[in-house]
Amino acid sequence: MVQIAVLGYGTVGSGVVEVIEKNKDMVNKKSAQELNVKYILDLREFPGDPYADRVIHDFDRILEDPEVTILCETMGGVGAAYQFTKAALERGKSVCTSNKELVAKHGPELLKIAKAHSCNYLFEASVGGGIPIIRPLNYSLTAEKIEAVTGILNGTTNYILTKMEKEGADFDTVLKEAQEKGYAERNPEADVEGYDACRKVAILSSLMMGKNVNSEHIFTEGITRIAADDFCYMNALGKSIKLLAMSRAIDEDSALTMVAPFVIDKQHPLAMVNDVYNAVFVTGNMLGDSMYYGRGAGKLPTASAVVSDVVDCARHPGRVIMCFWDEEEVKLLDVAESERSFFVRVKDCPAGSGRLNELFGSGDLIRLPGRSADVGYITPVIKEKDFLSSYEKLGDTALGRIRIFS
Amino acid sequence: MVQIAVLGYGTVGSGVVEVIEKNKDMVNKKSAQELNVKYILDLREFPGDPYADRVIHDFDRILEDPEVTILCETMGGVGAAYQFTKAALERGKSVCTSNKELVAKHGPELLKIAKAHSCNYLFEASVGGGIPIIRPLNYSLTAEKIEAVTGILNGTTNYILTKMEKEGADFDTVLKEAQEKGYAERNPEADVEGYDACRKVAILSSLMMGKNVNSEHIFTEGITRIAADDFCYMNALGKSIKLLAMSRAIDEDSALTMVAPFVIDKQHPLAMVNDVYNAVFVTGNMLGDSMYYGRGAGKLPTASAVVSDVVDCARHPGRVIMCFWDEEEVKLLDVAESERSFFVRVKDCPAGSGRLNELFGSGDLIRLPGRSADVGYITPVIKEKDFLSSYEKLGDTALGRIRIFS
Repeated sequence: MVQIAVLGYGTVGSGVVEVIEKNKDMVNKKSAQELNVKYILDLREFPGDPYADRVIHDFDRILEDPEVTILCETMGGVGAAYQFTKAALERGKSVCTSNKELVAKHGPELLKIAKAHSCNYLFEASVGGGIPIIRPLNYSLTAEKIEAVTGILNGTTNYILTKMEKEGADFDTVLKEAQEKGYAERNPEADVEGYDACRKVAILSSLMMGKNVNSEHIFTEGITRIAADDFCYMNALGKSIKLLAMSRAIDEDSALTMVAPFVIDKQHPLAMVNDVYNAVFVTGNMLGDSMYYGRGAGKLPTASAVVSDVVDCARHPGRVIMCFWDEEEVKLLDVAESERSFFVRVKDCPAGSGRLNELFGSGDLIRLPGRSADVGYITPVIKEKDFLSSYEKLGDTALGRIRIFS
Repeated sequence: MVQIAVLGYGTVGSGVVEVIEKNKDMVNKKSAQELNVKYILDLREFPGDPYADRVIHDFDRILEDPEVTILCETMGGVGAAYQFTKAALERGKSVCTSNKELVAKHGPELLKIAKAHSCNYLFEASVGGGIPIIRPLNYSLTAEKIEAVTGILNGTTNYILTKMEKEGADFDTVLKEAQEKGYAERNPEADVEGYDACRKVAILSSLMMGKNVNSEHIFTEGITRIAADDFCYMNALGKSIKLLAMSRAIDEDSALTMVAPFVIDKQHPLAMVNDVYNAVFVTGNMLGDSMYYGRGAGKLPTASAVVSDVVDCARHPGRVIMCFWDEEEVKLLDVAESERSFFVRVKDCPAGSGRLNELFGSGDLIRLPGRSADVGYITPVIKEKDFLSSYEKLGDTALGRIRIFS
């Protein structure tokens, strides 16, 4: 019998208890022993809840109970969650978490503590809730040099962009609708500004590099400036717009890592990832391209990922499950120095593409039948900083610009 | 230092040696020790090959060498490969294989022998070469009851169907072209008749059920009867045709498992899997839908998967890596009793849908502008055996029928 404590009885925490109960047969078979939730730590009481008798308010009871060997940290935040995780690992108790913020901020430190105390800090649920991606990166692609990871890592923004594309609606309208449906938070900043995707790509690219990618240094741009008018051009061009979180290894010590909306060809597998689904596209030097697709969030998918980590811990008592994520910092390339094409939308100018070609080099003008207020333009491949200084010169004729993924 | 023997120095075998050499740093780091290819077993000599000095012709030298602890079986077939694998496992030497035929035929027996001798029989490369799917099913989705797996598991047929769809070409023309390009064998039967996909889905559904799905009992239909004309209707309907290998758990002991071409909605993630790519779509009771996509074959992707198994063995000396696949047989449901809709193409009849509705119940007639030789028809959901007996009554007005995936 393995005794477990769940820290935080919110959405994911209650999901963890539910998965362990509902899939008991499977979970116990795969763990090769019985799992039991002994404590649930929460500030609140849950009268009437079938697990009300397990709810406690004092973390030390968990820490001091030698029977408890695995903790599920589903509290979130980097305050108490960090203290509790550290204290547990220092006692040799493994911790399985869905807390991407904590993993992104203190991952390598907590992994080091776990290793020193022959226990594990596992975080499958921290990226792409229902997509097994951490374990494939750690244990499956072991014969690969991973060259790049590109993900759609935030369900809220993907839902918004999918709706804008399909319905021709504006960002604000769709955001409001998403908030009403519970797909977006009342304060949507972490999602729509790309911060959530940024933390997740920090974790993925740290695993890709085997060294630490600091999320605070990742170039991050959200989707608030994407307009319904942009999608008119995309539909005509057979393209889509997705918030991509990407990291490309340059050499052993440096990477180009960024989060931003990108124009992507509809033939690309990532373009078919719609609504609240997430996906991670991985390029290896031997395997070539592979992709992992599934639900990025949600109570049960995320809880199932946490429990899969618990099963892994239960199967490896006293053994450290490998994870290569050193504290050494990865050097992040300056995005301003990177090169790509851009889609630009400008107020229609009778001069045609003359002025645009003058600014950006020789690109392609796109006039859509029936539209006179604006024209689209695709620049040649150009250094980002050069693009931005030219784009500024367009002044108030500039209506929007989106990077093109290639 | 871990000493390895490679059995069979063909495409995959030489790929294994190449991956171990090219990604040496990564492979040795993840194995936590150095891997060395000590022997290469082959009937041929390879003068001039950089590994010519490792080539031997006598399997017993490998068997008798206590230094060799891991074998890569990349010979194929179920004769010598079976004998060698069995003998190695009985000596406690782990075997990593790309041989789907052998895994499908003797998987549970070989796993049992491995377990009894505290070593491992691993087969990540046997399904979807470059897609990590065996390991996710075994170790990642451990908190899930997997309800269904649906795969595009054969690259040759997927290439042919993609070409037929995009170019409007006929099966025979595309097959010939695929043979010229080396994407199809001179004798293409194993691919185009669905036998290859059948073996792979036998492996996946055995892992899903934890019991043995006998590939010889799986209903299997190939793609040879799919016509260019069918795709005219598909394009008009926003559908595609894919050779799907699927297994749905009915209860703990029985499953509906089959391989056949299916009409699939273009919005479905499997519909975007084109050319030689493969994918496996997995439905779990907590995670919901997830999908794994990548190269289904090819020297280096397949070899990379074999080497990932070698790394796993190297990290677990003397330990059995869990795999639930008992010898007990899964009861396979009679496909004739299963229910679904069908797409039917018939010679145009002036009576319209009257005769068709009479035979199949109330379905939808599809007339395409500019076509007079045939009409399409979609039946309501109907038991397969009832459909087939009605379809037979169409006599020589019947031009084709394809199951519809839902």
